[in-house]
Amino acid sequence: MDPETDALNELHRRLSGLRDGRVADYIPQLALADPDDFGIALVSMGGNTYRAGKADSVFTLQSVSKPFVYALALGDLGPRETLRHVGVEPSGNAFNAISLEPGTGRPANPMINAGAIATTALVRADGPAERFGRILACLSAFAGRTLDVDEDVYASEAATGDRNRALAYLMRSAGSLRADPAEAADTYFRQCAVRVTAADLAVMAATLANGGRNPVTGVRVVAEPDAVRTLAVMATCGMYDGAGQWLLDVGLPAKSGVSGGLIAASPGRFGVAVHSPPLDASGKPVRAVAALGEMAERFGLHIMHNSGLHAATVTGAERVEREGRTVGVVTAQGRLEFTETEALLYALRDLTPPPLGRLVLDLTAVSTVLPGAATALAAVLADLVAQGHRVAVAARLTFEAVGEERPRTWQVFGTREAALTWAAGADGA
Amino acid sequence: MDPETDALNELHRRLSGLRDGRVADYIPQLALADPDDFGIALVSMGGNTYRAGKADSVFTLQSVSKPFVYALALGDLGPRETLRHVGVEPSGNAFNAISLEPGTGRPANPMINAGAIATTALVRADGPAERFGRILACLSAFAGRTLDVDEDVYASEAATGDRNRALAYLMRSAGSLRADPAEAADTYFRQCAVRVTAADLAVMAATLANGGRNPVTGVRVVAEPDAVRTLAVMATCGMYDGAGQWLLDVGLPAKSGVSGGLIAASPGRFGVAVHSPPLDASGKPVRAVAALGEMAERFGLHIMHNSGLHAATVTGAERVEREGRTVGVVTAQGRLEFTETEALLYALRDLTPPPLGRLVLDLTAVSTVLPGAATALAAVLADLVAQGHRVAVAARLTFEAVGEERPRTWQVFGTREAALTWAAGADGA
Amino acid sequence: MDPETDALNELHRRLSGLRDGRVADYIPQLALADPDDFGIALVSMGGNTYRAGKADSVFTLQSVSKPFVYALALGDLGPRETLRHVGVEPSGNAFNAISLEPGTGRPANPMINAGAIATTALVRADGPAERFGRILACLSAFAGRTLDVDEDVYASEAATGDRNRALAYLMRSAGSLRADPAEAADTYFRQCAVRVTAADLAVMAATLANGGRNPVTGVRVVAEPDAVRTLAVMATCGMYDGAGQWLLDVGLPAKSGVSGGLIAASPGRFGVAVHSPPLDASGKPVRAVAALGEMAERFGLHIMHNSGLHAATVTGAERVEREGRTVGVVTAQGRLEFTETEALLYALRDLTPPPLGRLVLDLTAVSTVLPGAATALAAVLADLVAQGHRVAVAARLTFEAVGEERPRTWQVFGTREAALTWAAGADGA
Amino acid sequence: MDPETDALNELHRRLSGLRDGRVADYIPQLALADPDDFGIALVSMGGNTYRAGKADSVFTLQSVSKPFVYALALGDLGPRETLRHVGVEPSGNAFNAISLEPGTGRPANPMINAGAIATTALVRADGPAERFGRILACLSAFAGRTLDVDEDVYASEAATGDRNRALAYLMRSAGSLRADPAEAADTYFRQCAVRVTAADLAVMAATLANGGRNPVTGVRVVAEPDAVRTLAVMATCGMYDGAGQWLLDVGLPAKSGVSGGLIAASPGRFGVAVHSPPLDASGKPVRAVAALGEMAERFGLHIMHNSGLHAATVTGAERVEREGRTVGVVTAQGRLEFTETEALLYALRDLTPPPLGRLVLDLTAVSTVLPGAATALAAVLADLVAQGHRVAVAARLTFEAVGEERPRTWQVFGTREAALTWAAGADGA
Repeated sequence: MDPETDALNELHRRLSGLRDGRVADYIPQLALADPDDFGIALVSMGGNTYRAGKADSVFTLQSVSKPFVYALALGDLGPRETLRHVGVEPSGNAFNAISLEPGTGRPANPMINAGAIATTALVRADGPAERFGRILACLSAFAGRTLDVDEDVYASEAATGDRNRALAYLMRSAGSLRADPAEAADTYFRQCAVRVTAADLAVMAATLANGGRNPVTGVRVVAEPDAVRTLAVMATCGMYDGAGQWLLDVGLPAKSGVSGGLIAASPGRFGVAVHSPPLDASGKPVRAVAALGEMAERFGLHIMHNSGLHAATVTGAERVEREGRTVGVVTAQGRLEFTETEALLYALRDLTPPPLGRLVLDLTAVSTVLPGAATALAAVLADLVAQGHRVAVAARLTFEAVGEERPRTWQVFGTREAALTWAAGADGA
Repeated sequence: MDPETDALNELHRRLSGLRDGRVADYIPQLALADPDDFGIALVSMGGNTYRAGKADSVFTLQSVSKPFVYALALGDLGPRETLRHVGVEPSGNAFNAISLEPGTGRPANPMINAGAIATTALVRADGPAERFGRILACLSAFAGRTLDVDEDVYASEAATGDRNRALAYLMRSAGSLRADPAEAADTYFRQCAVRVTAADLAVMAATLANGGRNPVTGVRVVAEPDAVRTLAVMATCGMYDGAGQWLLDVGLPAKSGVSGGLIAASPGRFGVAVHSPPLDASGKPVRAVAALGEMAERFGLHIMHNSGLHAATVTGAERVEREGRTVGVVTAQGRLEFTETEALLYALRDLTPPPLGRLVLDLTAVSTVLPGAATALAAVLADLVAQGHRVAVAARLTFEAVGEERPRTWQVFGTREAALTWAAGADGA
Repeated sequence: MDPETDALNELHRRLSGLRDGRVADYIPQLALADPDDFGIALVSMGGNTYRAGKADSVFTLQSVSKPFVYALALGDLGPRETLRHVGVEPSGNAFNAISLEPGTGRPANPMINAGAIATTALVRADGPAERFGRILACLSAFAGRTLDVDEDVYASEAATGDRNRALAYLMRSAGSLRADPAEAADTYFRQCAVRVTAADLAVMAATLANGGRNPVTGVRVVAEPDAVRTLAVMATCGMYDGAGQWLLDVGLPAKSGVSGGLIAASPGRFGVAVHSPPLDASGKPVRAVAALGEMAERFGLHIMHNSGLHAATVTGAERVEREGRTVGVVTAQGRLEFTETEALLYALRDLTPPPLGRLVLDLTAVSTVLPGAATALAAVLADLVAQGHRVAVAARLTFEAVGEERPRTWQVFGTREAALTWAAGADGA
Repeated sequence: MDPETDALNELHRRLSGLRDGRVADYIPQLALADPDDFGIALVSMGGNTYRAGKADSVFTLQSVSKPFVYALALGDLGPRETLRHVGVEPSGNAFNAISLEPGTGRPANPMINAGAIATTALVRADGPAERFGRILACLSAFAGRTLDVDEDVYASEAATGDRNRALAYLMRSAGSLRADPAEAADTYFRQCAVRVTAADLAVMAATLANGGRNPVTGVRVVAEPDAVRTLAVMATCGMYDGAGQWLLDVGLPAKSGVSGGLIAASPGRFGVAVHSPPLDASGKPVRAVAALGEMAERFGLHIMHNSGLHAATVTGAERVEREGRTVGVVTAQGRLEFTETEALLYALRDLTPPPLGRLVLDLTAVSTVLPGAATALAAVLADLVAQGHRVAVAARLTFEAVGEERPRTWQVFGTREAALTWAAGADGA
């Protein structure tokens, strides 16, 4: 198993013990959810999916649908016209969520229910069936597979959706909603009842992180500027009243839903999704929030320390002849965080097809290795040694892999030259 | 002149014509500001400063002081204890700025006045003189030079600061401020009256973008996590009631002040500052907001499309022997945005000392060149040709430099090999 | 014509020139109203009706229906249970009118739309038809005649009633409305479209002022405690955001509607209604507000200076034999305000049937005569003299009748004895 | 003892058992109050004082000072100018109490702290000492005796008054307070610390009820319109967030303070005060609120059923010769409520000096006797019989005295004539 999966498994194992929160019960179908369902999935920009736990359990999108339909509406109307109907400001607190902007009658943003209903109504279509058809097709393209509706959940939402209907009527009376209120609410109920898995959500989030192109299918779902805009709105409005705290702690645009789903996107790096039904008092899934918090800290994902210049880069992957033997040398520089480590690991694998057996990893220009990256790196190096490769690392720093249990079987040297010499030595594979 | 400066000059020239807004006049000293003062400065992570216009005009910090003192307080108390006294949530709107959180009595965040006064009072010291001494020293370290106070502005602030005094008394009565209210307000008035230039502010912003280490002086001013936290809070709370719109349009953590200063930081890339006294109705400097908007669009700075994997990188800078002649080859990959272009230009200059005269720029692995980067690149290549260098570019895409007036004097080839062959040709310099 | 009617006519004439305000146009039917329709009616506790202008023009009740339906609901459920569904606190401002009480989901009071819809839904009935039937019957009993619905106005209200539907859905989702939201809103639209005249409204208001018994028909419509409660709620919540200013200026519980109706009640004294379609910016009928303000000032109606002990009373109405002649003597004491003056005038008329011709009005125990009362009194005395009666007044104070144009034809003396002697004199009628 | 005092004693006895609530402890001096202190006092328009319990315990005015200083300011500036600085609208809820009106910067009303401080600052004076001197003189005139300040309470208020200082600074910054904020707050602290008894407060309230003239001393303290305005503002704003409920339940303008005082005024009838330190969660004195509620119900004080026409009046008090004997006859009509009964009792006493012993009370024109009035009446009649008088009552209704224990010793007849005949009978006293 790859080290990313190991890391997710370790995280999953630890957080499974977290038993706080309550499964949403405002409609009977949500109350049926298994509180022990707990899945994590991560999709990189390279299209690789990593999973832990029940990442294939099926649940309904609920509010996680909001950013995707917003991106669709942006494409239909353009940002200026969309902004005329739905604002982009955080609403302050959940209780205010009913208030519309004085003067314009706009809902504060597309991540609260009022704004989401208005957004749904903006999707271009000749009628409600076509509108929902386009929404479902868009969600499916984000996920990379054909999604469908949980009709029982939809029926329940429709039966108990008075508050959402109230919002729709309110917006029409305020002039910010031109569509039929009952119909707009109904389409919104259907979109909330679309079925997904954590693995689907991770692909959907990764599509936003990848500028609107699905990194698994390669299909462009929305234009890049619309993906960027959607992430910007998620960053300030996605986590309701705790937007500031979330950006401080986790530092990634995110969105959660009452069925227990939570997505987050690291622009240009990956999308992640966690599913676990029990919710905290503010309606966020307890284990999902904890998981994102830990991942942010261990993998250095915070958007405010993402760095261009200082980011580590694989600066070389070459075959060097030394003492008549061929040595694969991978060189990196800068700071090893999650994304760069993945690139490094792929470069290593590309250079190590059988029967090649001598390998140098030159990290002398690397300034920092985050714990999560170190764990991943150590696991791969150990695997390579176990497969019979002769592996040397040149590094100026020593790094400790968190939770590492296996003894270190690869050699570490202070300089590239020393590493190369040893790797090319006679006792090699 | 370098292309970054050219770009800033071009922007400065265009925006000088923008005559909207009014100079703040709530205290006489601010009303004395020259509405035509208009300076722009940008400082890269490499410590280079680029300027346009009156970047050395002196003005007072005002609210731009807030994030820096917040970073100082975070270092003194730690994030947990700081959070007990000052929240991190956007306050919704400017008018609500007086409200404290029910239960805790905390101000919403450190970027509104109440939160800034509470933050100032958190700075550890034995008395008010020492407290302000530490604040001034910290601001000076951020700027990389010794700053001082405009005593006239301070006196005016103190004379008209009833609302701020009210906030201080309110917080003490609510239990979130333990210091003497009159003294806390007074220290805050002094901090607002510290004198800076746009060039200073750009260094200060760059220090936050650089994880708390001043990129010009090399001095660590605050710990990296505290710089990250400060940028996160600026992202959601820095632009008052327009936080969502700002993050949507510009996509950078920022802070403005009533004296016309505005800073923004692109994590790991640069800090930028604009100074222009006329303010819009919401109190933000008109030209500065316009300048940031244009820079964000032209230079691709939006935090949500900053990308690790896809970012362009200088992957090689080497001397290649071909047909008995030495050719300098610089190789890059990915997407050419502002930061990467700067790195590329520096690599080019390092490889082109006299008398060396043959140069290849290998951009075949580059996927995108943003307009701002293209302008800068074209300018440098033209200069190199003008100096007598033989310059070839290998690229799969053609790029147009915005506003380019000079004819293209360098050669473009479809492959690295063709470029190398031409560059090593007999008719070379 | 009686002096009360004279006073109303004079007021009507003066205020007809007031041309401010705009006729409500949010539904076409209201926009059809004639801005020059202007009627005033007043009904005393004795069941006498006084009118000026077009007091028989027909218009729809709109919000003026609210207090009467509230009184009906109080009777059906009792005050405690009613309070569980609808609060009694002023809502602060019109814009907040959408907010429900946190925790209970109750609307603030029955005078805002949300509270009125909730109140309508509380009226006991087996179905919507029966519910509206009971409401219409109750409104008719208040008016003392059978009222009906303007079907065009009802249809228009229903077509544009999104905001009210929103409120109904919101209340059901909050648990404070158990009825079907669409049906509750519909019944409310019908109740708003009930047709009345200013004369009807004055009877309705007088019924509340008379403790729930219609002073014209003698029929008890609601229990006295429920009439008192309704007036109390009107006093704090009836005039929306201007409740405090209204109670300060006019000092009477009141309720207005967008069709231009306004009622006010002086407990134990009279009900008054004014109808004039043009509304001010806050939605109150301009001329009606002005009329009530003037009446309050001229007639001393303010609830806070209504006085029991000091109120004037007719303490005697007798025939005295003096010098062989019979003199009618009416004695009063205290303070002559509107109500007391009316009683005095009736006593005078009862004592002055033909051929009796000698009359003394003993006001020596009267401390104050308000201008409105003085006008009325002077008019009656002049009429009596004109009819050939010999009239003497004994008074310690002189009173000036506002707007009096006719010369004073009756005699005034300092003592009862002197007045009696003169009245019984030989030169009498 | 008189029947009014009996009624107050009975009420006091019953409510003494009410042990809910907590003594205010935000300053140490208030926490020293004896929770068992409990006094009631009532002052009629005739200047008679009735007391029960510790009506002479001394405590500080606190917020009960607000209406009186408001009346003083109204006199100094006139209603229009006063309104420019302090509004008259209920503030909705206690938490909003900090908000000032947008645009004007006015506090909502003079009964919340912000408004009270602004009001205090409006009192005309050349300096703070003179200003407080005028306030103390005015409060003393309301009470009818020279009041003074509890210096310890004042010092404590000043030491902990940050929130009030905050309000003062806020108002000056908003332009609604022109005075020095620290000084305005200080004067307000002093006014809150003025010492009174429940008996004093009853006189003060009665002065407002009496149109601004102290009914005990006969001194005019404020003009009648200003007394009326003050009562109107008390009616909507006096009981903070529960204004609507209070007016519904009790129906009298009122004001409470944290030291346990509560005043209420029945215009033209009486002033009442209760003192009992334990407060409920909203800061109102528990026993005082209960006492007012009971008095309102038993004595029919609700302002919305106060009636002019229907009020009982003593219409005659005369000596009639019948069968050679002199019989005192007191005649009343209408509705016997609290105030009218008091007048009746005084008339009875005036007619029954020794040796006169025959008395008729003609109540045949009385329509209603409220329970409280019946109790009082029965007690007086029984006393007269006990003293040896021969007492007959003519009445069409029988009335039951609440809590009456003594057997009825006076005779009741159906007509005045029958009562007169019996009273003049030979077997009389």
